Order: sequence, then C-alpha cells, then structure tokens
Amino acid sequence: MTSVPAAQRLHVAKGHGTRNDFVLIDDRDGSLDLTPALVQALCERRAGIGGDGVIRLVASRRLVEDAATLAADAGAEWFMDYRNADGSVAQMCGNGVRVLAALVRSLGLWDPRDGELVLGTRAGVRRVREVPVPAGVADERWYAVDMGVWSLPGGAAAVQAGGDATVDVPGLRVARPALSVDMGNPHTVVVVADADELERADLTREPTVRPLPPEGTNTELVLPLGERATEDGGTVGVVRMRVYERGVGETASCGTGACAAALAVRTWAGDRAPDEWLVHVPGGTLRVTARADGHVELAGPAVLVAEATVDLATLTLS
Amino acid sequence: MTSVPAAQRLHVAKGHGTRNDFVLIDDRDGSLDLTPALVQALCERRAGIGGDGVIRLVASRRLVEDAATLAADAGAEWFMDYRNADGSVAQMCGNGVRVLAALVRSLGLWDPRDGELVLGTRAGVRRVREVPVPAGVADERWYAVDMGVWSLPGGAAAVQAGGDATVDVPGLRVARPALSVDMGNPHTVVVVADADELERADLTREPTVRPLPPEGTNTELVLPLGERATEDGGTVGVVRMRVYERGVGETASCGTGACAAALAVRTWAGDRAPDEWLVHVPGGTLRVTARADGHVELAGPAVLVAEATVDLATLTLS
Repeated sequence: MTSVPAAQRLHVAKGHGTRNDFVLIDDRDGSLDLTPALVQALCERRAGIGGDGVIRLVASRRLVEDAATLAADAGAEWFMDYRNADGSVAQMCGNGVRVLAALVRSLGLWDPRDGELVLGTRAGVRRVREVPVPAGVADERWYAVDMGVWSLPGGAAAVQAGGDATVDVPGLRVARPALSVDMGNPHTVVVVADADELERADLTREPTVRPLPPEGTNTELVLPLGERATEDGGTVGVVRMRVYERGVGETASCGTGACAAALAVRTWAGDRAPDEWLVHVPGGTLRVTARADGHVELAGPAVLVAEATVDLATLTLS
Repeated sequence: MTSVPAAQRLHVAKGHGTRNDFVLIDDRDGSLDLTPALVQALCERRAGIGGDGVIRLVASRRLVEDAATLAADAGAEWFMDYRNADGSVAQMCGNGVRVLAALVRSLGLWDPRDGELVLGTRAGVRRVREVPVPAGVADERWYAVDMGVWSLPGGAAAVQAGGDATVDVPGLRVARPALSVDMGNPHTVVVVADADELERADLTREPTVRPLPPEGTNTELVLPLGERATEDGGTVGVVRMRVYERGVGETASCGTGACAAALAVRTWAGDRAPDEWLVHVPGGTLRVTARADGHVELAGPAVLVAEATVDLATLTLS
C-alpha cells in the first residue's frame, strides 16, 4: 500500500466494547467528508473494515451542528459523531462512547488521572472516567459513563402491577408481562424462568410486544441470578441478558439495553434492591449503577484492537 | 497504538476476492508462530480483524512441511499457508490465491509483466497471471489461476443420465437431479428453474444430498443465463450461482464452487457448449475456463482493502 496516493488513504482504528465494534476516525479538525456511502463501505465486513458503526472524533467547535455547538458551550472539547452501519446519523451509543474515550486517551488527548473526559454527543454531554475492572472479569481496562436520567413510562401503576406490556418471544411457550424502560430510547424488559429458556429463545425473529410503542422498542430478555457481596462491603445484583435491537436483530451487547434490564430487575426486586448490577451479555460483562441523583451509570470494557490504513479506492461506494 | 511494544504488534493486510475475505500476513522468513488460537482471534469479526481465513505468505524453503519442500523443488519461491477461520489448516482457496498474488505484487516481489507468479500451496503449485477485466465488470484488477484437473465422479453414466445425485433444497418444492463434480474437494451442482427459485432457496439450512459422499459435499444452485458473444469473437456461457459450503453455510463466493457450477452446466449443455463461463456469485463475478489440457482456470478480482497493525495483547486467545 506504499504505492497508494495519500489522498486515497484513510487512517482508522478498530475497537470494541463487549463486542459492539466500531471503525474509529480521528478527524479532529473536521476535514473529512464522512458520507453515508463511506460509512457503509467502511462498516462492510467483507469488502471493508467491518463494524456496527463509525465513530468520528471531531473538535466540537469544528462541527457545524447544534448539538456540537451546545457541547462546546458546555465544555466538551471533543464530539462523538456516531453513525450507524447503514450510514444514518445516530444519537449516541453506550458502548461506543467508552471506545471513543479509549481512542482519545491513546491519542494523548486525555489522561484519566486528570479527571473525567467530557465528550459531546447528540444526546448531550457524556462524562467518562476510568474505573477498576471488577473481580472475576478478564478485561484490561474499564470506563464508566454517566448515561443520564431514566424513567418508567408506565409510572407507579406499572411498578405496582409488575409490568405495563406483554412480550411473546419466539421459541418460548407463553407471552409474559414486561416492563417498559425509557433510556432516551425505548426498551421492554421481560424475565425468563431459567438458563434453558434464555438459550431457547429464538431471537432470529422479533419478539411481539403489546402494546408496541409507535417508535418500536428494544427487547431485553433477562435472567436474574441473585445478589452477591462486593469487595467493598456492598451488594451487587447479577443478571444475564439477551437483547433484540429494534431494526437490527439480536446483538452481542447493547449499552442502554443493559441499563434497562438492570433497572427493570431492580424495580421488580423492590425497595431493598441494590443500586449496582452486573449484567452478563453475550459479548462480555457490563455494570449498571442507579445513582441517587436519578442518573444511571454504565461501566464496561473498551478495547482498541488495531490501527489500519484503508485504500479508499478499493471500497465499493454505493 | 504508538505506545504498544513492538513485540505485541502484528502487521497484517485485509483483502478479498468476490467478498471472500482474508487476513494476510507477510511472514516471508517464517518467524511467526501462527497458532490456531491466533488465527481464530484474528478472524473474529467483532473482537479481531475479521476474515474467512488467514493467509500467511512464507518462503517455501522456510516452512518445514512436505508440501512446502515440494513447492520449493518445483520452483515456487513463495508458499500459501492457508488457515480456516476456526484455526484449522486448509489445502487451498481459489479466491484466496488471487488475493495472495495481489499481496505478493504489492510487496514488490512480483511484476505481472515478468510472467506468471508460481505459488506453492498444500494442493500443489498454482500459477497466477494478470488478465484483463471483462467488459461490464466493475473490478479494477483480475487474476487467473490454474486450478488443476477436474473430474465427474459419476463418469459417462452420470453425463448420460444428466446427474448422479438428487438434492432437496429447503424452500424449493421438489428434490431434483444433480451432478457431482470433483475439484479436489467435492461439489454437487443442481439447476434451479428461474431467478425466483434461486432467491427463494433457503440456504440457512444445509440442502439434503442423496447419496451423500462420506466426506460431505458443497452444494451449488445454478441458474443458466444462456450464452453471449465475447469481444474477441468467441462465446461465453453465463450462470448465476448460490453456494452452501460444507461445514460453513451459505457464503458470498466459493472459487471451486464456481468452477464446479460452470463445469456442470457445460456438461449438461453438451458438445457444443463453450469452454468459457462467467459465474455471477453473490459477492461478484468470476470466470471459469475449461482448458483443452483437462485443467480448469479460475479468474476474478483481488482487492487489498487495508493495512493494519494489530495489538496482539487485546486479542482474546481461546
């Protein structure tokens, strides 16, 4: 590739958080024309680099977009320009924001010892800090992100009734009650009886949710695994989860889905439930913390696997 | 990644031929310990680089393996050490050998103007040359590879009967006759009636082949599209194809499968059938030529998409 003209080369990084993977582009000065076709071509797994989305790092002041201006005004020097693999613009990605933080760190733009990294996103400013990797988890580095406020659209009535929807999961026998959780995006959480049910659920098809919100919903299947003591004398709840993402299908991990799953199980568990939850997703382990200020915090791994130089002339732009 | 120690870094390339994609490693001096675990981790699409397999370029004299010694004796300076994504050692890959040729060329080790590239493989020596891209095909560069001899295991009786097996394809109504083709690996080729049938066939499940060879078989569904004149006054047959690869599932392309499909349709077409066939696979277009010497030649694109530096410490080695 030494013979490829510089103008045809694009430097990228490949990273993932619990196997939610991204093509990362350092475009601090905002000079890249990141078209939907280029995003699609980069995310193509066989003819491109491959990823669930593209994350562009850009200076908030360099991006002509209201969210970036607001982020800059709020003190976020860097902005997370997130695109879905289909090329569409996306608000935020709970796993992606940690991976972007790892990139910002690797570029020498952030040292966790100096405090939080303040990142602008289309869903508002996100604050990231490094946290210790929990005991028993094999990851090398974890980061925690304030995911903002959450709510139960069904309110007190849903809490009392134990749910405000029913979900019919292909492969499982009966429809069952479920709880709606608003994480900025919609989620519907349903409990399965045991590990066999969790495995048997057929998520090659979309579960049927009733009533279905007009904008659709993400569906989480959770298996509560009880509580255990933490090293610092506290208590942590543990759940396993599978997720069907609206418009995507089953994925190895979903950050807001993990939050919704933990918050639903915590709601069902009642007043004495712990605020901290370990959520085992197919792609790894995340930790969800319901904070006293009404915000939810998501912690988990972020890994930068490779740096790559792409020959843009070889990509098939549709 | 500038802070990653050199010993943890591995330089690779990512390339594909008709969307059959590979992680390519320049290991000319044979110093890399390419373990099955490393192959698996590199081919992992979300937590690694992603690929259908790994192709290691190594000097034939540097590899302690009978096939490499034989290749060196036959004049092949370079050897194609091909591994499947599951880490197992493989014989050869028809699409991969072209992509490896593109790598050898990009490294300055081969200039097509100087003649054929002679590559050692575990299935014997393969000769590669650059050929013009056919009219109407969007690829930038094509290479042709001598794939060696082929045969019909059913012999003259199968030719007369039009087949020697039956295939039952999920999604299609009736089982139908099929022809076995030996390309060094086993293939069973079955004709579909129209484009609708080709699309409707459900290759998420393995077609049922009777009698099934003890080692299993790859199954090709072909739709003959007639013949057309070539620019040089000859005739080329055209087919569309989908393939179910033994032990893998449906893929975007299979080099030996394209050869088998073309050779079966040519056999069915009888004595006046052309020797040259364009095969449209989901991942692109290939050309198969039945040569007078009993060998079959496969031509098609090879693309080097990116160069990458992998941080080996981030890979999950199982």
